[in-house]
Amino acid sequence: MMRTHYAADVKPSMDGKTVTVAGWTHETRDLGGLEFVILRDRSGLVQITVKKKEADAKLVEIAKKLVKETAIVCTGVVKSSKMAPGGVEIIPSEMSVVGEVFKTVPFEVTGKVPADLDVRLDNRFIDLRRIETNALFRIRSETMRAFRASCEAQGCQEITTPVLVSSSTEGGADVFRVDYFGKEAFLAQSPQLYKQLAVIGGMDRVFMVSPVFRAEKHNTTQHLNEVTQMDVELGFADEEDALAALEKTFIDILADVSKTRAAELKTLGASITVPKSLKRFTYAQAVDALNDAGFPMEWGSDFSKEAEARIPDALGAEAFFITRWPTKARAFYSMPSEADPEICLAYDLVYRGVEVASGAQRIHEPELLVKQLKYHGLRPSNFERYVDAFRYGAPPHAGWSIGCERLLMQLCNLKNIREAALFPRDRVRLTP
Amino acid sequence: MMRTHYAADVKPSMDGKTVTVAGWTHETRDLGGLEFVILRDRSGLVQITVKKKEADAKLVEIAKKLVKETAIVCTGVVKSSKMAPGGVEIIPSEMSVVGEVFKTVPFEVTGKVPADLDVRLDNRFIDLRRIETNALFRIRSETMRAFRASCEAQGCQEITTPVLVSSSTEGGADVFRVDYFGKEAFLAQSPQLYKQLAVIGGMDRVFMVSPVFRAEKHNTTQHLNEVTQMDVELGFADEEDALAALEKTFIDILADVSKTRAAELKTLGASITVPKSLKRFTYAQAVDALNDAGFPMEWGSDFSKEAEARIPDALGAEAFFITRWPTKARAFYSMPSEADPEICLAYDLVYRGVEVASGAQRIHEPELLVKQLKYHGLRPSNFERYVDAFRYGAPPHAGWSIGCERLLMQLCNLKNIREAALFPRDRVRLTP
Repeated sequence: MMRTHYAADVKPSMDGKTVTVAGWTHETRDLGGLEFVILRDRSGLVQITVKKKEADAKLVEIAKKLVKETAIVCTGVVKSSKMAPGGVEIIPSEMSVVGEVFKTVPFEVTGKVPADLDVRLDNRFIDLRRIETNALFRIRSETMRAFRASCEAQGCQEITTPVLVSSSTEGGADVFRVDYFGKEAFLAQSPQLYKQLAVIGGMDRVFMVSPVFRAEKHNTTQHLNEVTQMDVELGFADEEDALAALEKTFIDILADVSKTRAAELKTLGASITVPKSLKRFTYAQAVDALNDAGFPMEWGSDFSKEAEARIPDALGAEAFFITRWPTKARAFYSMPSEADPEICLAYDLVYRGVEVASGAQRIHEPELLVKQLKYHGLRPSNFERYVDAFRYGAPPHAGWSIGCERLLMQLCNLKNIREAALFPRDRVRLTP
Repeated sequence: MMRTHYAADVKPSMDGKTVTVAGWTHETRDLGGLEFVILRDRSGLVQITVKKKEADAKLVEIAKKLVKETAIVCTGVVKSSKMAPGGVEIIPSEMSVVGEVFKTVPFEVTGKVPADLDVRLDNRFIDLRRIETNALFRIRSETMRAFRASCEAQGCQEITTPVLVSSSTEGGADVFRVDYFGKEAFLAQSPQLYKQLAVIGGMDRVFMVSPVFRAEKHNTTQHLNEVTQMDVELGFADEEDALAALEKTFIDILADVSKTRAAELKTLGASITVPKSLKRFTYAQAVDALNDAGFPMEWGSDFSKEAEARIPDALGAEAFFITRWPTKARAFYSMPSEADPEICLAYDLVYRGVEVASGAQRIHEPELLVKQLKYHGLRPSNFERYVDAFRYGAPPHAGWSIGCERLLMQLCNLKNIREAALFPRDRVRLTP
């Protein structure tokens, strides 16, 4: 490798040791006899101090010509120094440019001149060099790791289901169409039906992290057309089992990220309180609370984003479940309650005023599935193969999915979901 | 949960303990006074013994009527028994059917009557209940886990790049087209360009597991149109760094799977020898060896599948690298050798006669990129934005990707790559 140490790993205690660092010229300062080069890599910053009189002439020449964002590799001796940032500097013996800057960098990586989100996203390869963006995607990486670790600890195995599918999950609307060797295919809106097939196929407890697609013509700060979904499905399980698993997974993620990414959260000015457990409110209770709080809402409809944002105050919690939804407001495969079929065993997880996860106990009885397809105005004939799969010993099962970008947005207090995707896709954005 | 124990966890040492198991009726045997029910879950089989005279009449009634593949939940007392398979049986006190069988199961899950692969794939939700298929996907799950664990140990962070892209990676051929709100989009053939952007954006070392798509009209046992790719890209790194990382990751996966999935490999009649290191042969050496082995091949072309299959014998190794390929045989972004630009710093990993991974040091200099685009007959104007990204301090970088299904196929000695995908997609197969 071209480096021996990351910037943040160069410590005053290493005084006298020779190291090689590699990264970008974050800033330069010419103080006459001294030239300071601040090198940045994903770990942070470190100062390289060139003493013009003492240093090799060629090295001084390179250092003097360095423009911001040049990729450099530098070997030198570590020197503990009370004057330098972090108490340490590197006195270089060799310095080479490995990636030249040929054009004016489209915006200031240091953030001294703020750039618009659109400019940042158009030049994401530059935006990623910002310390804040770097921190955000380190948190994202850890969120996915924590999700998988929690699933594995709960006995789930990972599966991969297709993106290219022959029928839409929810019945035809808002799908992207693909020409598949002359046949019509769709991009999966959710791995829903496939993870159910895996579970009734005996895989028992499964999880996956996968891209999903919605051709919705949204133009909000909370929607994207391609997102990452973190899914779980549990066989021989009911609503209660799935809620308990979601509660554990959500808390595990929060606990992990708040611990292992404390520095990155601080960089973003975000903080996480890890709850011991999550309160549960029924849909009816949530509607009542909103009405009581002077925010009138009709029973039966989904919560508007505005209503959702009011719920935490109305119910007095940062993270909680809303359970027992109106059957007509949820997907056709949600299990109706035996006591009252107008209510189903579906649930949402609301975090800081935004729905970050949702799920349900599924219908595992083929005749009830047919009945509910009709109830939702869908044609059973379009779902024949799916329904048929439940005719060979399908056990009760339940599951849920967490929206990765939604969760990241709430964890890091982002104002726009586009920030949470490395290369976001919205109605107008298909590049880079 | 509906169970307290998986089948394989019910041990003779638990004699006298009450357990609840849940799974499918794998087989039933009526021996007059005794009714044996073999219950199967993802862990294996366990015998439930119903003593007709002693048991509850209702329970006997349920047991007698059980057809194969019915989903059941059973509570009973564990009894150590030298007669029972695994030395243990369950004497039930309660048994209930939770998933009825309504139609004739399309083929024998026990494998007593072998089913064609097409029939199995058409009914994958039944095929998954076969002990062999179950074992295979437990190995697949572990392969992905081992890949990620190795990447994390090597300091890589996970990224997610889009499936929907505005231009094709390799220049236009064999892509699936998508109507994106009136604009033309494509399904990503590889995350190649995006992982490079992440690395030159300062993320330094990244990995991902993602679906990729090729609209190739293949009809072979080694190709699918949607596959899972396991990618790595390293910044401030050269060919040697990337080869070392691939070698470590590959050996880590083999070591992990052979240890943690030993039982499943045995079920499939497969075994893994973990190499200490991988030999390297240049492309020129491989061509010479094939010619010497009486399998004539011309310099400059890619190896045919037949040639590839002969290489292990010709070179005398199960797993090895082929390095230093002809520049014209590889992707435009492969770094040409300084000594001889007709040779590039690309490499393949061949395992048991099949290419399971490939990669290269990439070109990080914008003008060289433009030159190589032209050399490959591609229009630089189609790659303008991509090339531009290298104009702001792009360091040397290199990477590779492993084909998940290809690797699984070779690990488990599968004859057809379709077996290695949960719901495979080929030219004619878009369901289930």
